[in-house]
Amino acid sequence: MTRPPFPAPRGDRSVIEHELVRELAEKSSSKIVLVVADGLGGLPLDPGGKTELETAITPHLDGLVRRGTSGSSVPVLPGITPGSGPGHLGLFGYDPLEFRIGRGALEATGIGFELGPDDVAARGNFCTLDAAGLISDRRAGRIPSEESFKVVERLQGVKIAGVETFVKPVKEHRFVVVFRGKGLDGAVADTDPQATGVVPLDPQAHTPAAARTAEVASEFVAQARRILADEPKANGMVLRGFAAKPKLPSYEELYRLRAAAIAVYPMYKGLARLVGMTLVGTPHTLDEQVDTLAACWQDYDFFFLHFKYTDSTGEDGAFAQKVKRIEELDRVIPRIEALGPDVLIVTGDHSTPSLMKSHSWHPVPTVLAADTCRPDGLEKFSERECLRGGFGIFPAKHLMLLAMAHAQRLGKYGA
Amino acid sequence: MTRPPFPAPRGDRSVIEHELVRELAEKSSSKIVLVVADGLGGLPLDPGGKTELETAITPHLDGLVRRGTSGSSVPVLPGITPGSGPGHLGLFGYDPLEFRIGRGALEATGIGFELGPDDVAARGNFCTLDAAGLISDRRAGRIPSEESFKVVERLQGVKIAGVETFVKPVKEHRFVVVFRGKGLDGAVADTDPQATGVVPLDPQAHTPAAARTAEVASEFVAQARRILADEPKANGMVLRGFAAKPKLPSYEELYRLRAAAIAVYPMYKGLARLVGMTLVGTPHTLDEQVDTLAACWQDYDFFFLHFKYTDSTGEDGAFAQKVKRIEELDRVIPRIEALGPDVLIVTGDHSTPSLMKSHSWHPVPTVLAADTCRPDGLEKFSERECLRGGFGIFPAKHLMLLAMAHAQRLGKYGA
Repeated sequence: MTRPPFPAPRGDRSVIEHELVRELAEKSSSKIVLVVADGLGGLPLDPGGKTELETAITPHLDGLVRRGTSGSSVPVLPGITPGSGPGHLGLFGYDPLEFRIGRGALEATGIGFELGPDDVAARGNFCTLDAAGLISDRRAGRIPSEESFKVVERLQGVKIAGVETFVKPVKEHRFVVVFRGKGLDGAVADTDPQATGVVPLDPQAHTPAAARTAEVASEFVAQARRILADEPKANGMVLRGFAAKPKLPSYEELYRLRAAAIAVYPMYKGLARLVGMTLVGTPHTLDEQVDTLAACWQDYDFFFLHFKYTDSTGEDGAFAQKVKRIEELDRVIPRIEALGPDVLIVTGDHSTPSLMKSHSWHPVPTVLAADTCRPDGLEKFSERECLRGGFGIFPAKHLMLLAMAHAQRLGKYGA
Repeated sequence: MTRPPFPAPRGDRSVIEHELVRELAEKSSSKIVLVVADGLGGLPLDPGGKTELETAITPHLDGLVRRGTSGSSVPVLPGITPGSGPGHLGLFGYDPLEFRIGRGALEATGIGFELGPDDVAARGNFCTLDAAGLISDRRAGRIPSEESFKVVERLQGVKIAGVETFVKPVKEHRFVVVFRGKGLDGAVADTDPQATGVVPLDPQAHTPAAARTAEVASEFVAQARRILADEPKANGMVLRGFAAKPKLPSYEELYRLRAAAIAVYPMYKGLARLVGMTLVGTPHTLDEQVDTLAACWQDYDFFFLHFKYTDSTGEDGAFAQKVKRIEELDRVIPRIEALGPDVLIVTGDHSTPSLMKSHSWHPVPTVLAADTCRPDGLEKFSERECLRGGFGIFPAKHLMLLAMAHAQRLGKYGA
């Protein structure tokens, strides 16, 4: 049996900070724009060289730095590399160690499945079982998505009494299963033995409250085995990351903000929806995202605009492409400024150095421009400069407090 | 019914830090002076301009910066604007989110009423009630203080069995009422409906422990109604911010310091007394405060000197006046240095930018001068320079640890 995730902390500190902002948040007509350039931070390719951001020509971002206050955002803790979930939760003002999105819930969110309060989601991997029922291929021969989608279709035939079951394809051998019913609970162990030549594990409950969910999952697996018995590759499965929808106080509750999310990819739309943002528009490009921003400007107080390609180019190790993407972002800044936001923030959810071809733990250069900013003497938007900024090196989870303060949306604490 | 304040945290972290200093604090003959220039931090009036502190000519404060270590103090959390209570608690070494001073207790403290352990205080506002008992004016026509004082005098006639009642005037329609008796508790809801055309609310207990206090408050209001029935304006009242004296470990307990407070205004005297400082002298000017400091130099280890006018000029939006007040403070620094303090700190409890005419969340420039300081290369006492100081951007609640350390009053932690 896999180890259960480490226990959720008692969360006192986080509760205090959320209660504080809930108490102090005031209604206002001021507007806040949060531009998240995914994976923004980088590294030089060679010792003594420049990072992607330092290489890019960014006159408009530099302008924000000159009139604003900057800093280096630490997504979770020094040295901790976040995924997209914790990275965004931090920026949204939720301590990513206190609020955790289970893997299954994140996967469901990532494909645009809207989880309800009675749902438990798990990530599924098809695998190949031999005649003895032992796993012979943990990824079902990396079955192509077209084939996998047909297998998923066959699983719509599973019927479990008292529970509604949703099976959704992801990519290749990966899928998501969601169980919907009263009394379900995410505390169920993974069934993936992480090895071949052994049988998939039974779904086991970590806690008594999850006993029913473990039974439901077992029933699902058993029916699936029968339905898929004749599949050449995908005749078995393992399930991982059972999780309910995380309980996050909404933007409206915490900040009294009507918040809009303007994103292209389902994962970021899903994360925004988890904190109660409204998805606006169906943009496909950055320019269309800014069009959407302009179109809904009167209807919201807060706007989350997600730009994906600073991350994906970093993941690809494409330094020059990442530089170009940063410059693409720079070019739309004047259009955003022209709308007259009271607070305009540009940051990232984590660093994705092209050198590493992956997310990293390095702090993220961050700038906040507002008329209420105290000048910090910086001239250029870069990793090196932001270290010396007026916000210093700060936890990402405090960015929303700074946004609210500079938008003059927080009252005084104590007399 | 108004919402109760958020529950007191279990305070683990704060307890640990206090236990640590309690364990490590050592007796010594060294002396620490903490000069609090209220609302010290500021903002430029125009983009690219200088703050009040950057404009002021401050050769002596700059001298402290050159021989000391500097930093930027965050009063509560990034983005949180504190009132005087939380601002000072932080500087005194008490986490202002863990230790809260209820509104009533702060008001009583502010007028110099010494709260005892059996007291619950509330802030009162006189209001005008119409013939039907509905509030027609929430501030009793902003009745002048002279008139209001007479109304308060009439309320001395209230008699409640088992409880001693104190009614004290504040200003115009505002007063403080203190109930003294066994078994009282501050968890009582405000009676202010925050509207006209409705009756004042009944005092209601948030918790069973406060039931008796709610009864006492109801009885007070009922008797007051009868006594004030013939008042033309102030014939009713609302009560807010019921609170007992906060439980704060004293300076003597935590730091083994005999601490003196040298302040002009009752609020700051009261805050100092809440942490066990002794009020010394009755100075009216900054020079008299320094005279007082010199006169009691042998009798104490720690001296809190509060300078009000950097805040009040900021609140007035009087940039040039705030500059002058900073220069006034600068001029007395040599007299303080001449006494030979082992540690001399100059900081503020929060920022009060003239531009904003209010307290703000911006960090506060802070300098600590001592022979044990590590030089940080700064030349000038200013917001911008202090960002690059040796203490970095630090929580105000840790300033006392730094003061104690530089005064060589803290032993080693662990072997």
